Amino acid sequence: MAITVVGSVAYDSIETPSGRRERCLGGAATHFALAASFFTDVRVIAVVGEDFGPEQEAVFAARNIDTRGIERAPGKSFFWEGSYLDNLNEAKTHQTDLNVFATFEPKIPEAYRDSEYLFLANIDPALQRRVREAMPDVRLVAGDTMNYWIKDHRAALLEVLKGLDILLINDTEARMLAGNNNLVQAARAVMAMGPGTLVVKHGEYGATLFHKSTQEGGSTERTFRAPALPLEAVMDPTGAGDSFAGGFFGYLASQRNLSSAVYRRAMFYGSVMGSFAVERFGTERIQALSRKEIDGRFELFRELTHLD
Amino acid sequence: MAITVVGSVAYDSIETPSGRRERCLGGAATHFALAASFFTDVRVIAVVGEDFGPEQEAVFAARNIDTRGIERAPGKSFFWEGSYLDNLNEAKTHQTDLNVFATFEPKIPEAYRDSEYLFLANIDPALQRRVREAMPDVRLVAGDTMNYWIKDHRAALLEVLKGLDILLINDTEARMLAGNNNLVQAARAVMAMGPGTLVVKHGEYGATLFHKSTQEGGSTERTFRAPALPLEAVMDPTGAGDSFAGGFFGYLASQRNLSSAVYRRAMFYGSVMGSFAVERFGTERIQALSRKEIDGRFELFRELTHLD
Repeated sequence: MAITVVGSVAYDSIETPSGRRERCLGGAATHFALAASFFTDVRVIAVVGEDFGPEQEAVFAARNIDTRGIERAPGKSFFWEGSYLDNLNEAKTHQTDLNVFATFEPKIPEAYRDSEYLFLANIDPALQRRVREAMPDVRLVAGDTMNYWIKDHRAALLEVLKGLDILLINDTEARMLAGNNNLVQAARAVMAMGPGTLVVKHGEYGATLFHKSTQEGGSTERTFRAPALPLEAVMDPTGAGDSFAGGFFGYLASQRNLSSAVYRRAMFYGSVMGSFAVERFGTERIQALSRKEIDGRFELFRELTHLD
Repeated sequence: MAITVVGSVAYDSIETPSGRRERCLGGAATHFALAASFFTDVRVIAVVGEDFGPEQEAVFAARNIDTRGIERAPGKSFFWEGSYLDNLNEAKTHQTDLNVFATFEPKIPEAYRDSEYLFLANIDPALQRRVREAMPDVRLVAGDTMNYWIKDHRAALLEVLKGLDILLINDTEARMLAGNNNLVQAARAVMAMGPGTLVVKHGEYGATLFHKSTQEGGSTERTFRAPALPLEAVMDPTGAGDSFAGGFFGYLASQRNLSSAVYRRAMFYGSVMGSFAVERFGTERIQALSRKEIDGRFELFRELTHLD
């Protein structure tokens, strides 16, 4: 079933211990869409500037991603510059130019209206909310956010959370959002804000799924931990979280019955896509990926955690 | 099969967000021995002062731990004072008094000589080495260490590592020991120093096993990740790592065939014992524990990671 994703399509200049890339294709919606496209149809809502050309367009086209919702506006695309020189787990932002995103008004193409899955990537919660309200009939809505919105746009964010089925955030964000340093207590507090399912990402240590299941007769609470693959070479962590979200939500959208087992497998597919994303700069690795490689790595993850 | 453990038996004064305890029974050998005693016979080599009385003795006796190797010396027992007020993952040390440990000369009781398993808890590598050399015929030797020895007693520590089958350390220590920030590369470098098996503990995120197996026809390298249980209340993290080691090594010592599957289950038993240890101050929770509770929590861990 098709996913519509709204979020940034951008240029990133990135420096890591492995090197530097200038203005490579990035943005949360880009990373999410590429990862999810291995599992289901994906449609993007975003805005780009006049610097977005056929070369970037071709990256989406190669994965059959619907870009009719990517608006072209006068000016430059969103630009981010950051580095991970001291710590691969934490980006240091050097520059953020919103550019055309500063006045973005999301428009939903008619052809997107039958999407059953909606992903609100990390953007201004006011925009997330507008898209959510414009697509009231979707089957499942997931979203992401970041410390900036949690701190300075809390009221707007809380409104968005009410309309989410699934929230994917990292440890620090979960603790900040809940105002509680204990992960389990923080998860419970965040889930009381709306989302019945919470995925907390722990970077190189994996992710935890907190899940209220009503699918298996009665309401039960489940917790599931998926590891991250210990990787010998992490070239660029940019987009790892969005690629995780794309694998996770893409796999869910490809399944008819959303059982707990399907959620658990979705956590593994999220980890698989995150592990590929960091192996090269920007979108390089995911662009060159095959479904066979994905399935192979899924089995690696299974071995990594298989007890008996 | 019996384990002999050498390490500290001490008094700890501990402050955490949950409260404060003065001079409770602690020390690496204590936490290790208590946890391992649920799986196999345990014998302790340590030194205590005149402040070690029948009440402390009774804690070991209640778990049938052999204390004939705990020497009584004139003076006071090892004392540590620390707090975890800002961060439950990292102790802030306020005071360390070696006391009788400053002149400790480990002596191995005749009755310990047939131990097939040896655990060198975190103490001066010079002492670890002497005990290792005095027990050349053990089947399996595991050990622990800490940043202080890695930084300031590297040569002595490297000698110890040559005689270890298994090293259990945390992330920071593994990276420091290897001089490499990538976990996989660091693990390979540490294993080249001696231990064929390395367990890297990630605190609240679990632990990773790097394991060269020669048991299953040829030499294969395996990696296994065990999660930690997301806990709603962590009262006192002191001794969590030693309790992990006790569960891990105690379970190994209880098994005849050390297959990869047995190592993986040992990782879970380590996580189980670590998860109990932090629920109360000092040794309180492990003292009150039953084998039935251990098995129950093992199943919780299985659910937490079970994919299908």
